[in-house]
Amino acid sequence: MPPTPFDRVILGDVVLPDAVLRDGYVAVRGEAIAAIGQGTPPPAASVDDHAGRLLLPGLVDGHMHTSSSTGWPGIEGASMSAAAGGVTTCVDMPYDVPRPVTDAGILREKVAVVEATSHVDMALYGTITKAGGIEAIAGLAEAGACSFKLSTYEYDAVRFPRIDHPTMLAAFREIAKTGLMCAIHNEDQELVQRLTEEAKAAGRTDPIMHARTRPPLAESMADLEIFEMALETGCHVHIAHSSIARGFELAEIYRRSGARTSGEACIQYLCMTEEDLVRLQGFGKCNPPFRSAAEVERMWEAFRAGRIAYVSTDHAPWPRERKRYDGDIFAPVAGLTGLQSFAPLLYTLLAERGLPVTLMALYGAERPARFHGLFPKKGALRVGCDADLCVLERGDFTFDAREIRDREDARWSPYDGRAMHARVAATYLRGACIWDGSAVLARPGSGRFVPRQHRDTYLGEG
Amino acid sequence: MPPTPFDRVILGDVVLPDAVLRDGYVAVRGEAIAAIGQGTPPPAASVDDHAGRLLLPGLVDGHMHTSSSTGWPGIEGASMSAAAGGVTTCVDMPYDVPRPVTDAGILREKVAVVEATSHVDMALYGTITKAGGIEAIAGLAEAGACSFKLSTYEYDAVRFPRIDHPTMLAAFREIAKTGLMCAIHNEDQELVQRLTEEAKAAGRTDPIMHARTRPPLAESMADLEIFEMALETGCHVHIAHSSIARGFELAEIYRRSGARTSGEACIQYLCMTEEDLVRLQGFGKCNPPFRSAAEVERMWEAFRAGRIAYVSTDHAPWPRERKRYDGDIFAPVAGLTGLQSFAPLLYTLLAERGLPVTLMALYGAERPARFHGLFPKKGALRVGCDADLCVLERGDFTFDAREIRDREDARWSPYDGRAMHARVAATYLRGACIWDGSAVLARPGSGRFVPRQHRDTYLGEG
Amino acid sequence: MPPTPFDRVILGDVVLPDAVLRDGYVAVRGEAIAAIGQGTPPPAASVDDHAGRLLLPGLVDGHMHTSSSTGWPGIEGASMSAAAGGVTTCVDMPYDVPRPVTDAGILREKVAVVEATSHVDMALYGTITKAGGIEAIAGLAEAGACSFKLSTYEYDAVRFPRIDHPTMLAAFREIAKTGLMCAIHNEDQELVQRLTEEAKAAGRTDPIMHARTRPPLAESMADLEIFEMALETGCHVHIAHSSIARGFELAEIYRRSGARTSGEACIQYLCMTEEDLVRLQGFGKCNPPFRSAAEVERMWEAFRAGRIAYVSTDHAPWPRERKRYDGDIFAPVAGLTGLQSFAPLLYTLLAERGLPVTLMALYGAERPARFHGLFPKKGALRVGCDADLCVLERGDFTFDAREIRDREDARWSPYDGRAMHARVAATYLRGACIWDGSAVLARPGSGRFVPRQHRDTYLGEG
Amino acid sequence: MPPTPFDRVILGDVVLPDAVLRDGYVAVRGEAIAAIGQGTPPPAASVDDHAGRLLLPGLVDGHMHTSSSTGWPGIEGASMSAAAGGVTTCVDMPYDVPRPVTDAGILREKVAVVEATSHVDMALYGTITKAGGIEAIAGLAEAGACSFKLSTYEYDAVRFPRIDHPTMLAAFREIAKTGLMCAIHNEDQELVQRLTEEAKAAGRTDPIMHARTRPPLAESMADLEIFEMALETGCHVHIAHSSIARGFELAEIYRRSGARTSGEACIQYLCMTEEDLVRLQGFGKCNPPFRSAAEVERMWEAFRAGRIAYVSTDHAPWPRERKRYDGDIFAPVAGLTGLQSFAPLLYTLLAERGLPVTLMALYGAERPARFHGLFPKKGALRVGCDADLCVLERGDFTFDAREIRDREDARWSPYDGRAMHARVAATYLRGACIWDGSAVLARPGSGRFVPRQHRDTYLGEG
Ligand SMILES: [Zn+2]
Ligand SMILES: [Zn+2]
Ligand SMILES: [Zn+2]
Ligand SMILES: [Zn+2]
Ligand SMILES: [Zn+2]
Ligand SMILES: [Zn+2]
Ligand SMILES: [Zn+2]
Ligand SMILES: [Zn+2]
Repeated sequence: MPPTPFDRVILGDVVLPDAVLRDGYVAVRGEAIAAIGQGTPPPAASVDDHAGRLLLPGLVDGHMHTSSSTGWPGIEGASMSAAAGGVTTCVDMPYDVPRPVTDAGILREKVAVVEATSHVDMALYGTITKAGGIEAIAGLAEAGACSFKLSTYEYDAVRFPRIDHPTMLAAFREIAKTGLMCAIHNEDQELVQRLTEEAKAAGRTDPIMHARTRPPLAESMADLEIFEMALETGCHVHIAHSSIARGFELAEIYRRSGARTSGEACIQYLCMTEEDLVRLQGFGKCNPPFRSAAEVERMWEAFRAGRIAYVSTDHAPWPRERKRYDGDIFAPVAGLTGLQSFAPLLYTLLAERGLPVTLMALYGAERPARFHGLFPKKGALRVGCDADLCVLERGDFTFDAREIRDREDARWSPYDGRAMHARVAATYLRGACIWDGSAVLARPGSGRFVPRQHRDTYLGEG
Repeated sequence: MPPTPFDRVILGDVVLPDAVLRDGYVAVRGEAIAAIGQGTPPPAASVDDHAGRLLLPGLVDGHMHTSSSTGWPGIEGASMSAAAGGVTTCVDMPYDVPRPVTDAGILREKVAVVEATSHVDMALYGTITKAGGIEAIAGLAEAGACSFKLSTYEYDAVRFPRIDHPTMLAAFREIAKTGLMCAIHNEDQELVQRLTEEAKAAGRTDPIMHARTRPPLAESMADLEIFEMALETGCHVHIAHSSIARGFELAEIYRRSGARTSGEACIQYLCMTEEDLVRLQGFGKCNPPFRSAAEVERMWEAFRAGRIAYVSTDHAPWPRERKRYDGDIFAPVAGLTGLQSFAPLLYTLLAERGLPVTLMALYGAERPARFHGLFPKKGALRVGCDADLCVLERGDFTFDAREIRDREDARWSPYDGRAMHARVAATYLRGACIWDGSAVLARPGSGRFVPRQHRDTYLGEG
Repeated sequence: MPPTPFDRVILGDVVLPDAVLRDGYVAVRGEAIAAIGQGTPPPAASVDDHAGRLLLPGLVDGHMHTSSSTGWPGIEGASMSAAAGGVTTCVDMPYDVPRPVTDAGILREKVAVVEATSHVDMALYGTITKAGGIEAIAGLAEAGACSFKLSTYEYDAVRFPRIDHPTMLAAFREIAKTGLMCAIHNEDQELVQRLTEEAKAAGRTDPIMHARTRPPLAESMADLEIFEMALETGCHVHIAHSSIARGFELAEIYRRSGARTSGEACIQYLCMTEEDLVRLQGFGKCNPPFRSAAEVERMWEAFRAGRIAYVSTDHAPWPRERKRYDGDIFAPVAGLTGLQSFAPLLYTLLAERGLPVTLMALYGAERPARFHGLFPKKGALRVGCDADLCVLERGDFTFDAREIRDREDARWSPYDGRAMHARVAATYLRGACIWDGSAVLARPGSGRFVPRQHRDTYLGEG
Repeated sequence: MPPTPFDRVILGDVVLPDAVLRDGYVAVRGEAIAAIGQGTPPPAASVDDHAGRLLLPGLVDGHMHTSSSTGWPGIEGASMSAAAGGVTTCVDMPYDVPRPVTDAGILREKVAVVEATSHVDMALYGTITKAGGIEAIAGLAEAGACSFKLSTYEYDAVRFPRIDHPTMLAAFREIAKTGLMCAIHNEDQELVQRLTEEAKAAGRTDPIMHARTRPPLAESMADLEIFEMALETGCHVHIAHSSIARGFELAEIYRRSGARTSGEACIQYLCMTEEDLVRLQGFGKCNPPFRSAAEVERMWEAFRAGRIAYVSTDHAPWPRERKRYDGDIFAPVAGLTGLQSFAPLLYTLLAERGLPVTLMALYGAERPARFHGLFPKKGALRVGCDADLCVLERGDFTFDAREIRDREDARWSPYDGRAMHARVAATYLRGACIWDGSAVLARPGSGRFVPRQHRDTYLGEG
């Protein structure tokens, strides 16, 4: 009797970045994809039949904050909702409570927590301190940080500081040596601060003022500063979140001049508008803020033109009470939950705009993995890669925030009640089913730290 | 006992357009690829072990002339050399003796000959007559022609006529409706004719005069004419062979203006120079002619920048006696053999320039298939696609024209004696081995006609 | 008693290319401007008081055909209407009956006729023969030809031949050495010829068919050919008349690539449309034909953007009977009268579009003089320059073709009956009044030949 | 006997922006040019014979600081050296001791001082306060300020403050309404401050450190900020001094996007290099600092390409003792004298580079007058304009700082001892001779305030 060659075969319509294999399968051996096929599957120890469903690569969310509010204990819950949302690789920001990830020692401590408590795999950003800490950059890269994150705006002098120009320049010079990408939170501090003061002084603290005090110009001015330094230093500088098409245009102008520049769109900037801010109040507050409906259309134009690096969530699971609006929109913290809604929403937005589902594999998995140097281990349905899958069931569903798999006070969502054209029917992490459509099967520690795989820069094709 | 799921498993390093799967396999069921995997292969009725060799998609040669000299009987020999050269899909030009493929009836007749005599699969170009025949365009597209070919230069009033501006414009308008690509032989008739007359009058008929009488400007002026009409009509207009980087630059300028324009490079323009023309005399004569070494470098720059549609051969197996130079370079016919040398030469050129072998899968298979609307049935190692493979053995070889598998008088090559870094160790066509490294196993009729699969335009990414 | 320093002082509002000097004067000594001033004029032998009128530089019409129908005897009448129209420098085309200006000897003969019969000054174009005559180019430049004219379209095999590509290329190479500009009549022969044949075959010979058989593409294809050869040779190549904005766009694209390319607009393309062709029948027939109203708007956009070299008339005083339409629009000759209407019409068009009269000095005098190498002797109201003036009286007038000062059968105009906002109240040629508002005071031979003054290329600023 | 029509006739070679009238003259009536001529001049009450010399328009220095060190009493001396230097219009910066020109009242006070003490005519910049003072902008424009000046760098919290982003944005919005230009001192405060601190901390206070602590990036980052706000607001934003070609490139990129952006080059950036800083120590210190020799070449490339708005001096007549270097390059103040050397140096630099003297009329008179809205009253040798002239005598001279016509302690110059190819032989202000080549004939109060003449934006041609 011949040896059974595969451990598991998963059946369904395989969604690749530019094609869909109907009646296909993904065959797993150990933790990796060992074969992809179509038609009668080969023998395997077990068969998971998702016939009629879409087998996508496990999503890679390139931007999230698991530990901004609760510190590293937040990893456990956030990664659980990731599992339930089809996200198998989380790229976590470094702005953690009580201290950010500013050296290899801290990174290694966080890695230990990840490996002990995470439900999905996780790559980690590093950062520097307000005062500098440039000398820790090489060590962070060495220890496996995938990318760096700095900010032009100060939310917290220790956790999330504004990095001034000379320090940022020095950091870019040093990061350039590592080959890693440096993402920037891009808001002009002076503009935002003044407009906020003026709004408060004028007694204007209603929700729309959150958008009015952070106008598009506050973004583009920050974008320009960092890109001119990118041109000077050769560092790959990336807008952590552009809510405006101008950001992607600037990245392209600088690329043409030889700089390594890019920018990502969080999914909210592809569907939410100022009206939603007014409606959701504190629960619609994030930075940058939602823009006009016309700007959303320009964002999709940039998307269709291939100018956007990838789509992410900027997931930040603040406790519900810190998001509540009581007459002062400046009081609640900024940030939205988004991990569990990511896959259904991205599917739905593409469908609503008549765009092919293959773009979901591209912008929700392959490209974020490429930009963070995790590809092709992560982000691909390819032989030899990690057997991470997001299985989608098409149909008419409604997103229900109460179903979020995180601690109770993080079970809120700006998308609560939104019609979705798909739901996550299963999630596989390195060959194991970690979500079966109703329960998270992963346990704390199922997830692993994913170090950056190489140091080549990726800026998109063409 | 479980049923054996695969008919054949082919082992080797699988070369994809952007990755190589070491110790991989391609599993075949029927004529199609049913799985691609890595590691221990699944059970199969037969196993072909090419461990250590490269498994590439069967090459797609997007430009050849099987029937210019001998008529359709030429298909048998040319396709045999294709099999021996790892080319599994030939895209044949319509300029056949005694009459070109100018309507659906002729196309169907040629299809019958292909299916009866070809050793590999074949897609077919259509064309129009000198006088017009625009009304046959829709029928040709309906009958499965993949693309159209017209010329700005007249080689033969019937077989290979110059199409004048109004007729070309009318043809573009009609072809635009079909969605098919229209490739153009791009030489300015007036310039070439005059310079040739002047050379003859001056008694200058030595080999280099072939290049001098067809200067780069003769190409670029033809390129501009056809691209301006492309802009006007919306037709996808393609330079059948640009020997100069300017051609690709113009295609890009027009694409930016919204036109559908592209151009291909025949492999000789990536390695041969005027010195080779002098050395090879009649056997180095083709149109456009070889250019300077500096131009070859510019061609590679265009290649690396992604501006070239694909690489082809322009294979034209003229009888040896019609290529001989006897003091008058204008006497021999223009055209080179190239099918059997294509795979080893493309591999060698990439290797010599330090470029990855994945580009061979891209420019020698995927992209020509995409431009001709044959993808992904042809041109891809993907599940569900035709199981066409070109197996390369790396090493130090010398190309020997006597080994060409065509009729005796076509066994000549401009590359005779050239050092090659690889040879074709096997060729598979729809799952069957048709070349085992020493003998062609295919028989006349093994090959099939491949109609265009869809009518979407492909102009490259980005 | 001090010597009277000036021969003549002419009073009025002096119109410079970027300013108007109210209550100014132009003081003449001999044939040149000796002073320009404002306020109380200096003593002079005579004072011509045009207070309240506009003193413009005498217009330079950079494109006309005095001798297409009647041969050089046509110079006398055409130049008389120039004098009555404020045009003091005519740049005459070389396509004369019975033979064109193809060598220095012919040029010198024509110069003699000019000096004996012209009422205004005249610069002369040279050309080549259909067969070549390249060797005469240097001599023509030496003899003072200002520019060259070639055609891509054949009106007459001897007088106005199509120059084929190799001959044109050789001509450009030779003209490049002289530094002179080469203007091209830009129509694609093949397109026009075929469309005309088809129209005739279909029995469509009504007026609009003149436009339909010469579509914009027939121009742009010719433009591209000549510009690519301009890029190759370094020759200053100029579209003799672009009726479409695309022509100016192409000239700019090529200039950016380093070519010396430009194009002019005849005044009819800035105001006439296909409706006028239908209305005027044969009397509205010229080549290229009138375009759509939308195209006219695009022409003004190009004008405002500074993309147009200058504005000219393409004056061609055909006998009335050769313009008459008798059911076949292909029968009448192409060409319009325009010299006498030029100044009032240019003034009127600028006024109607709210553009300043200074642009009339720029586009009707300075720039044509610059492009033809006649500046600043001609085309400027500057000290030291020829004292040529066009005096405009503002008011409401109607253009009356019967007032044209040419032979009887040339007294027709497409602008007959058009409302004009100005009339030419006086014309001065080198200090002498040659038109006083009602009578031509110049006599045959008052005019002189103006050789090109230098060989620098002018392509406009910026 | 006829009345003498002109008060004065000045003979010489008249230098216009694009031509030189040999043996010409400028005739004056009252304070204005009443005629320009060539040859025998008309009768006049007086004749100033500068035959063989160049008659240029009186220079317009678009950037100077008369009152930075001594307050408004500095106007008297600075304007005297202007008279001796052929500069007839000074455009004075608003950063005066003890308080800057921040409202119409202060402007009017300064106007009174100008009219009482200045030797030449003077236009005045306005500014805002660090805290804002936006509401004074309209009044300043109303009172005749020609332009506004703001800074991204703080030299003094009151006199020369950094304007933060929100205040600058608000100012641009308000200035946009006036139509006036807003020039910006462009240095990134954070970069400069940090690099300076680091240099001091490292004990590096030698002269070259002045350049090292203000790298090109410190300029370009400031340029980008202000240009992005220019794009947002429509305000004409102007780099007050770009020492790097990148500044002009950015201005052009933004102009292409529709912004109103420009930049000027001070003359030192066209000839001085870091070596001169090392040589001159404190007397070579200015902001931005001198750059590399390669950058100087790029500056000339920008100049020849027409990208530079105009050339100015940034004259700042600091007392000699404040410029002295005693081991700490950070101690002396920044700024150079330049008014009296401006004309000879600009002439010399053009001559050394083989550029025509007409460019001196263009970049040293016409264009600064245009950018500041003073044209054509100032900056032109044209009829009707102010009769301001700078008369140059060509020859071999040496610039001698002791000859500077200012208070004793301002008689120093970075150009002391430099070979010059011309000297200022006479200066005329509104028809009166104010410098005869050896003595200043003007008296305090000869000069007048020149208000902005109109509110049209000028950004150069094309
Ligand atoms: Zn952020
Ligand atoms: Zn974030
Ligand atoms: Zn060909
Ligand atoms: Zn071919
Ligand atoms: Zn013409
Ligand atoms: Zn003409
Ligand atoms: Zn400054
Ligand atoms: Zn300054």
